[in-house]
Amino acid sequence: MDLNNIKDPSVVKNLTDEEMRNLAQDVRNFLINNLSETGGHLGANLGVVELTLALHRTFDSPNDRFLFDVGHQSYVHKILTGRGGQFDTLRKYQGLCGFPKRNESEHDVWETGHSSTSLSAAMGMAIARDLKNESHSVVPIIGDGALTGGMALEALNHIGHEKKNVTVILNDNEMSIAKNVGALHSALARMRSAGKYNRVKDDFEWLLKKIPAIGGRVASTAERLKDSMKYFVVPGMFFEELGFTYYGPVDGHDFEDLQGNLDYARKTEGPVIVHVMTQKGKGYQPAESDVKDKWHGVGPYKIDSGEKIKPADAPPAWSEVISEALRAEAREDERIVAVTPAMILGSKLEKFGEEFPDRLYDVGIAEQHATTMSAGLATQGMRPFLAIYSTFLQRGYDQVIHDVARQNLNVIFGIDRAGLVGADGETHQGVFDIAFLRTVPNMSIMMPKDENEAKHMVHTAVKYEDGPIALRYPRGNALGVEVADKPETIDIGSWETLKPGEDAVILTFGTTIPLAIEAAETLQEQGVDVEVVNARFMKPMDEKMLHEIFERNIPVLTLEEAVVQGSFGSAVLEFQSDHSYYNRPLKRIGLPDRFVEHGDVKDLWKEVGLTRENVVDKVLKLLPQSEKRA
Amino acid sequence: MDLNNIKDPSVVKNLTDEEMRNLAQDVRNFLINNLSETGGHLGANLGVVELTLALHRTFDSPNDRFLFDVGHQSYVHKILTGRGGQFDTLRKYQGLCGFPKRNESEHDVWETGHSSTSLSAAMGMAIARDLKNESHSVVPIIGDGALTGGMALEALNHIGHEKKNVTVILNDNEMSIAKNVGALHSALARMRSAGKYNRVKDDFEWLLKKIPAIGGRVASTAERLKDSMKYFVVPGMFFEELGFTYYGPVDGHDFEDLQGNLDYARKTEGPVIVHVMTQKGKGYQPAESDVKDKWHGVGPYKIDSGEKIKPADAPPAWSEVISEALRAEAREDERIVAVTPAMILGSKLEKFGEEFPDRLYDVGIAEQHATTMSAGLATQGMRPFLAIYSTFLQRGYDQVIHDVARQNLNVIFGIDRAGLVGADGETHQGVFDIAFLRTVPNMSIMMPKDENEAKHMVHTAVKYEDGPIALRYPRGNALGVEVADKPETIDIGSWETLKPGEDAVILTFGTTIPLAIEAAETLQEQGVDVEVVNARFMKPMDEKMLHEIFERNIPVLTLEEAVVQGSFGSAVLEFQSDHSYYNRPLKRIGLPDRFVEHGDVKDLWKEVGLTRENVVDKVLKLLPQSEKRA
Repeated sequence: MDLNNIKDPSVVKNLTDEEMRNLAQDVRNFLINNLSETGGHLGANLGVVELTLALHRTFDSPNDRFLFDVGHQSYVHKILTGRGGQFDTLRKYQGLCGFPKRNESEHDVWETGHSSTSLSAAMGMAIARDLKNESHSVVPIIGDGALTGGMALEALNHIGHEKKNVTVILNDNEMSIAKNVGALHSALARMRSAGKYNRVKDDFEWLLKKIPAIGGRVASTAERLKDSMKYFVVPGMFFEELGFTYYGPVDGHDFEDLQGNLDYARKTEGPVIVHVMTQKGKGYQPAESDVKDKWHGVGPYKIDSGEKIKPADAPPAWSEVISEALRAEAREDERIVAVTPAMILGSKLEKFGEEFPDRLYDVGIAEQHATTMSAGLATQGMRPFLAIYSTFLQRGYDQVIHDVARQNLNVIFGIDRAGLVGADGETHQGVFDIAFLRTVPNMSIMMPKDENEAKHMVHTAVKYEDGPIALRYPRGNALGVEVADKPETIDIGSWETLKPGEDAVILTFGTTIPLAIEAAETLQEQGVDVEVVNARFMKPMDEKMLHEIFERNIPVLTLEEAVVQGSFGSAVLEFQSDHSYYNRPLKRIGLPDRFVEHGDVKDLWKEVGLTRENVVDKVLKLLPQSEKRA
Repeated sequence: MDLNNIKDPSVVKNLTDEEMRNLAQDVRNFLINNLSETGGHLGANLGVVELTLALHRTFDSPNDRFLFDVGHQSYVHKILTGRGGQFDTLRKYQGLCGFPKRNESEHDVWETGHSSTSLSAAMGMAIARDLKNESHSVVPIIGDGALTGGMALEALNHIGHEKKNVTVILNDNEMSIAKNVGALHSALARMRSAGKYNRVKDDFEWLLKKIPAIGGRVASTAERLKDSMKYFVVPGMFFEELGFTYYGPVDGHDFEDLQGNLDYARKTEGPVIVHVMTQKGKGYQPAESDVKDKWHGVGPYKIDSGEKIKPADAPPAWSEVISEALRAEAREDERIVAVTPAMILGSKLEKFGEEFPDRLYDVGIAEQHATTMSAGLATQGMRPFLAIYSTFLQRGYDQVIHDVARQNLNVIFGIDRAGLVGADGETHQGVFDIAFLRTVPNMSIMMPKDENEAKHMVHTAVKYEDGPIALRYPRGNALGVEVADKPETIDIGSWETLKPGEDAVILTFGTTIPLAIEAAETLQEQGVDVEVVNARFMKPMDEKMLHEIFERNIPVLTLEEAVVQGSFGSAVLEFQSDHSYYNRPLKRIGLPDRFVEHGDVKDLWKEVGLTRENVVDKVLKLLPQSEKRA
C-alpha cells in the first residue's frame, strides 16, 4: 500500500489479519526509511505498529477519541490519518510535529509532549460525552513509564471511582526512556508472567470445587475467597482493585489477540484497562538489540548497519559537561546525591551511576516526588543535585516553592534543556523557568557562558550554604573551550564584563552571549561602543554593577532566550524602578508572549528576533540622536 | 498531668496503657479548651491523640523522624514536645504555628501545610540515613485523603521499589476535609472490613491443605495460589503489591492494638505501612456528630454546646459570592461543569452540587488531574470552572502551561484564597499566582473589586471564547455591596477609574483598592490629587488607559497584595519600557521577597507595608519637589 496516499483510517476497516500483517510491514519499512533521513522517535513507533492499526480497525476515529500519552508514539496514527506524505518534514521548522497536534488533523483530539496527561484528559472527555448524551469511546494510550507519573495515578484513582466508560490502553514495553522504576512496574511484571486471566479463572474454579463443605469461621473465609476471586491471582488485580476491568496481557504484535481483547474492551461498561505487551524497536534489528533505550529518539542513520550519522567532532553536550563536573565534586564531597526523574540518559548520568551507584536515584517519571525527595535529603545535610529539564520542572513547581524554598533547603537544581529545545517543540521549550523561579523567595539562579564557567558554577552550587540554587544550561553542545583543572567558587550574584564599552550596555547570559558579542562587533564597526556583560546570575543580580551601569546613564539592553515577560529583563526593570534610575532608556529582548513551535533552533531564533540585526537595531534606537553615527 | 509543663516526649516513655488513657483524656480536654478560644484544626487533632502518644512511646523523637503530612494534626505532638504553654497563641501573629515548624522545635524535622509531601521527604531522609550509616526510623504520618495526591503515589511507588526502611503510618479517618474520593478509598474500605491479616492467613492455609493433590496444569495454578497467598484476601494487598509490609487495620484509639503493631512495624525491615483507623473529632460530641467535616478547621466556640462564636452579620464569603454567581450561570448554560480538588466545602460548592449533581466533580486531592481533566472537558466544548486555591494551583502549574494554555482551551480558573490568607500562614499564602500565570501565553487574569463586579466577571469568564481565563478572589468576606440582578460582560482588559486625580495615579485591584482610596483621601487633605484606577485585569492590561496615563506624565504607583517581583507592577514597568515612557517615576508596592508567616491579615499587612502611611509616603516621594505640599 502506498502510505503517502492514505487519506483516513477507513483503509484498515475491512482488512484481514493477513492484510494487516502486510500493512504493518509496509509501515515499519516506511518508518525505518523516513526516519533514517529525518530522525525521530523510531523505537516507540516500531513498537506500536500493530497496536495502532488494530485500534483504528476497532474504533472509529475521530468520533472515538484516541489520546496518545506523551505522544511521540503517534507516527503510525499520523500515517493512517492522511499525513504520510509529510514525513520528510518531520520535526522540522514548520513541518510535521513529532507529537499529536490539533491543527494538523481532526484525528488529533489531544496534544501531548509531557507524559501522564492522557488519563485526566480522557476523564474530562468522558464526562463531557455523558453530559451531552453521546456514546463514543474515549481511548487513552499510555505507556508503563507514563503510568507512574503522579497525575496518571490521580486519574486512575478518579476514573475507577466514577465508573465512567474509559478504555485505557496500557502499552507496556517494559521500558520507556530507560529501564522503568517503581513498585508498580514490578506489579506489571507479575501480571505479564501470570498468563491469561480466563485460563487461571477456570483452573481456580475447579480448585474451589475441591474444597470440602465446611462450617463456621473458616466457611466465611472460603466464601470471601470465592467472592473476591477476581482479586486473587488475576494478573490485573492491581487495576481491578482500583475499579477497572482488566484485559490482558495481550500480545501487542498479534492481530488476533489484539482484536479479541479490543472488541471485548470496547463493549465493556465502565473503566477498562487493556494491558498490551509490545517490544520497543520491534522489527528493526539495530533498535531491538539496543539495550540502552531501544532507539528512543534518534537522528539520521544508515538503514543497513544502523550506524548513526553524526556531525564530526562536536564539543561535549552540556549535560555531559555538568555531569562530569558533578562527578568531580562528588569525589570530594560525600554529601552529593544525584536525583533524576527518568532522565539518566538524557541528563548523561550513566557515568555518575557507575562511579557512585548508591548516590544516584532515578525515581521514574515523578518530578514532584523527585523535588521533595531532594528537599528531604537536604534536611539531613546531604547536597542533592536534581537534574531536571526546565520544562519538566514546571511539574515540581509547588514542591520548589512549598518544600524547598520555603524551608530554604540546600537543593541544587540542575536545570537541563533551558531555552529553546528545537525539534521537540512547544511542549518542551525551557523558557519559563527564570520567570517562575525568580519570584520565589530564597532562590538563586545562574547560567554559565561556557563549560569552564559551568565547572565553576557546579562547584559554587555545591559550596553554597544559603538555600536552593538553580544552575540552568541549554540543550545541545557546549562551546569547546578549555576547562580549568581546579574549580573555583564564583561570588553569588557577581557578573562580569566581557567587553567594555561607553555608549550602551547589553546585559545577557548563557546562550545569547555570542549573539551580543557579534552585535557589539557590528556596532563597533559603525562607531558605537557597546559594553557586553555576562549577567550570569539572574538572581540575585549584581547590584553593585547595576548601580554603576545606571549611574553612567547610558542605554541598557537586556537579551535572553526566555519569555520576555517576567524574566531577567523584568528584574532589571524592577531594579531600575526601585532605585529611581528614571530617564535611562532600557529595552528587553526575549521570547514573545506565545508558544514557540518545533524546528531547528537557528530558525526559531530568527523567528523570535534573537538575531544580530534585531540586537543592533534595538541598541541603535536606544541611543540619543547625536550618537547614532551609523 | 499539667500539659503546659511537658518538656519533651520522655514523659510517655514508661507509662502504662492505663496512664496513657488518662493522659489522652487530659490532652483532649486541653485541646477542646484551648481551641475554644483560638480556633484551629480540632477534629483532626482529636482523632490522633492516642496515635500520637503511642508514636512517641514507641519511637525516639527527634532521633527517629516524624513527618506529619499536611501537618494540621500535629498539635498533640506539639504538646508532647514542650509547646503546650504556647497554645494561647496558636495560629496568631508571631504565635505558635498551626503546622510543624522547624524553628519551633528540634522535633519538627519537616514542615508541611500542603498535602502529600511526607512520603517523598521521608524517602529522602531514609536515603540520607543509609548513606550516613545511621539507623533511626523515618516515620511519615499521612491521612487517607493525602495518600491520593499524585506525589504521594509517586513516592509509594518509589519507596516500594527501593525497599528502604520507611515506616508509613496511614491515618485512615475515612474523611479528610470532606468525604474522600477515589477508587483507592474504596480499596481502603475493603481493607478496613477485612479483619486481621493473621487470622485470615491461618484460615487460608487450613483451606489450602484441603485441596487434593493434583497434577498437570492445575497443579501449577495451585502452587501459584500458595505462593501468592499474601496477595489474596489480605486486607493490605494493594500495599503489598507495591512492595510494603502491611500491618492493620489497627484501632487507632486502643493503646494495646497500637503498641503491638507499632512495635512490629519498628522492627520490620523494608517499607512498612501501618493502617490505623481513627475517628476525626473523637471524644467531643459536637465534632463527632458533625457530618460535614467533623470540625475540620474551626473558629472559637462554646465548649458545652459546640456553638460557633461568629461575628454578627458579615457579608457573604467571597467563595459563596462566586459560587452563587456560577450557579446562576449554570442555569443558563449547560456547558458549565464545576471541578474541585477536595474543596467542595472550602469553595462553597455544596449548593452547586445539590442543584447540578452531574456537573460537579470533586476529584480528591489531585490538583494536577483536576487541571488537565478541565482541559479535557474544554476540548469537548464544555466550560469547566476549576475552583482551586491560589496556593494549590501551584501544583497544577505544568498542567496550566502544557495542557490548558498551550492548547488555548476555555478553562475558567476560579482562584480562591488569592492574597494573604492569615492563620494558615506561609504554606498557604496565595501570593505567587499573578507572577506565575501572567508569563504564560494565552492566559487572562482578573480580580473583582466587590461582589457585584465578581458576578459580572463570572459571566465574563463564561462568555469568553478565546482561551483560559483566571478569576482570582480573596479569602474571607466580601464587602456587602448590592449585586445586580442581571450580570453583564466586562470588556476583557478594561480598567476603570474609581477616583480621578491630576497629580499621580495609583493602579491597583481587588483587596488593595480600599487602601488606595483611603490613601488618596489622606493625600487629598494634604492637597495632592491622586487618581485611583481599578486595574481589574492583570492580563491583558488596559493599554489604552496606560498610554493615556503615561502621556499625562505624572507619577504612577502600583499597589497589590502579591509578590512584588514579577507580578502586576512589573507588567506595568514592562509596558512603560516597551513603549519608551522614560522619565516617568513609577514605584511598585507589593509583598517582599520572603515568605510571610501566619497571623491576622491586618497584622500581616502592617508587617509588609500595605498601609495607608506607606502608600501616602510613596506617592509623596514620587511627586516633583514643587508638588510636595504636605
